[in-house]
Amino acid sequence: MGEFDLIAKYFKRPTRRAILGVGDDCALIAPTAGMHMAISTDMLVEGRHFVSTVSPERLGHKALAVNLSDLAACGAKPVAFTLALSMPRVDTVFLDGFSRGLLALADAHGIELIGGDTTAGPLTISITVMGEVPPGAALRRDAARAGDELWVSHPLPSGPLQTDPLTSAGAMSLGDARLALEVFRGHITLPGDAFERVRQRMDVPEPRVALGQALRGVAHAAIDLSDGLVGDLQHVLTASKVGATVHVDALPRSDIMAAQPVALQRLCLLAGGDDYELLFTAPVACHAAVLAAAQRGGVAVTCIGSLDAAPGLRLVDAKGHAVAQDDAAFDHFKA
Amino acid sequence: MGEFDLIAKYFKRPTRRAILGVGDDCALIAPTAGMHMAISTDMLVEGRHFVSTVSPERLGHKALAVNLSDLAACGAKPVAFTLALSMPRVDTVFLDGFSRGLLALADAHGIELIGGDTTAGPLTISITVMGEVPPGAALRRDAARAGDELWVSHPLPSGPLQTDPLTSAGAMSLGDARLALEVFRGHITLPGDAFERVRQRMDVPEPRVALGQALRGVAHAAIDLSDGLVGDLQHVLTASKVGATVHVDALPRSDIMAAQPVALQRLCLLAGGDDYELLFTAPVACHAAVLAAAQRGGVAVTCIGSLDAAPGLRLVDAKGHAVAQDDAAFDHFKA
Repeated sequence: MGEFDLIAKYFKRPTRRAILGVGDDCALIAPTAGMHMAISTDMLVEGRHFVSTVSPERLGHKALAVNLSDLAACGAKPVAFTLALSMPRVDTVFLDGFSRGLLALADAHGIELIGGDTTAGPLTISITVMGEVPPGAALRRDAARAGDELWVSHPLPSGPLQTDPLTSAGAMSLGDARLALEVFRGHITLPGDAFERVRQRMDVPEPRVALGQALRGVAHAAIDLSDGLVGDLQHVLTASKVGATVHVDALPRSDIMAAQPVALQRLCLLAGGDDYELLFTAPVACHAAVLAAAQRGGVAVTCIGSLDAAPGLRLVDAKGHAVAQDDAAFDHFKA
Repeated sequence: MGEFDLIAKYFKRPTRRAILGVGDDCALIAPTAGMHMAISTDMLVEGRHFVSTVSPERLGHKALAVNLSDLAACGAKPVAFTLALSMPRVDTVFLDGFSRGLLALADAHGIELIGGDTTAGPLTISITVMGEVPPGAALRRDAARAGDELWVSHPLPSGPLQTDPLTSAGAMSLGDARLALEVFRGHITLPGDAFERVRQRMDVPEPRVALGQALRGVAHAAIDLSDGLVGDLQHVLTASKVGATVHVDALPRSDIMAAQPVALQRLCLLAGGDDYELLFTAPVACHAAVLAAAQRGGVAVTCIGSLDAAPGLRLVDAKGHAVAQDDAAFDHFKA
């Protein structure tokens, strides 16, 4: 099967909102009048961002999810995306699963694949996603203010909305994806059932798109957690020229995480990577509004600290003692 | 140097038109009221789309040029682009040259890099480019009509505008990039001076952005020549449900090309790839308007055939004899 047949078979579907979709030199879309367009690009490389044993369907999901997570962090409503895919050979089993996972998530968010490129090469996936946000409403990294509360999203436990981490046992949470990675690296072992649950957090992240939009006008700054909480928070602090205090023991964690040694918990929670939760700041006066936004967004949120005028990041435990920040940054060219 | 320092040093510049540029989860742009947005993505893989010995500066140029060429084929005005870059290690010499070539071409077209992603991995470059076009004005593959003249753009010779291929000797033209590739493949040799000229056509294509916009309201269908004239023309014929007759001996060619054996000339001209010229159709009544558009676009154009209601592609020589179409399609998964 050649490049053009491949695109037609696996990725081309009737256009809905787009004026012109896959198959021309360019796609055409009609932006909604008066809206700004939010745009983000991510690239996933085999062996770097995903293991070769991941199912193609999960990979298709994740490739789009990590991009939607960027739109979520801006409070933007997703509209459309493009896909550039390089792969060693035309593997129809892979393409069938990959396109299924990719397009299922696209359907779940009401967006469409409008264009792309496929070529032979090492397995690499690059997606560019476009969304819309009203002028001035985007959540930005540089909008945090001293005095803001610092929040993080995490999955709802089964049952009613819980924002107290002590009651969210059973739900998955921050750092679980990193636990799965540590299993793959051979550093730890987990029972099969627990491994499958944390692996699902790594493979099938759910971008917090509804929460991001619900936080417009409520939150000040936001970022999605892709590289680890401490590293990502540092980007907000640097851009906003503020400092923060994070209560490490307040970080929401799953029952699986809570059963791990404290040092491993802190590594995963603070420097985990691949969480794709939203980390955001909001004025204290908006505390109730944040909880209401979380309910509209269908996720749990937990207040994990506060922002200060004094520069720097202070990690403290439940007793108020400082927690060291070793290994708390994840960088694709260092790790 | 880590990922974030790298982005800041080589790719982050003050935003101009963008509301928010490189460095947040998303970039933000304000679409021009009433315009449609044209979007295209291309991915370049080392060893597939470029040789490892290409200069980083030329590679930066080409990576953006091939995307701008897609916008040109739609008649869109470029606005902004994103870059996803995977590379084996942080190579500052590479990054310095690559970003210089990339941003110089961006400046030449008045567009800006608004976002991106860098990661470790095999050298792979994926760019998504955005442009604007008035509703209904985009040149599409499916808009060719029987009776249209078929045109191709090519570089201006030094001196006044020439549209007669016999007088354009000295200028570079169609198929020259393929000649360079054949040298790299060891199939042919060229004198050093000639090799440098055809290699420049391969490495430093000039996207026909001004021509594309000048052809709005004049041309019916257009496509950019990336995979070879015959293969790309077939896309237009299929999408438009028409046939075509191409006068092979009328195809514009450089003096270097004209000195090659006829079989090699035809391979390069008909199936060359990497030309990044515009192939377009226009009503006979617009013949003069096409020439005027070419003048505004700063390029030469040559009429190379016509479109027919009868399906299929007919290649004929100057005597009206049929020319075989062997090896006339280039597919990234076949070649």
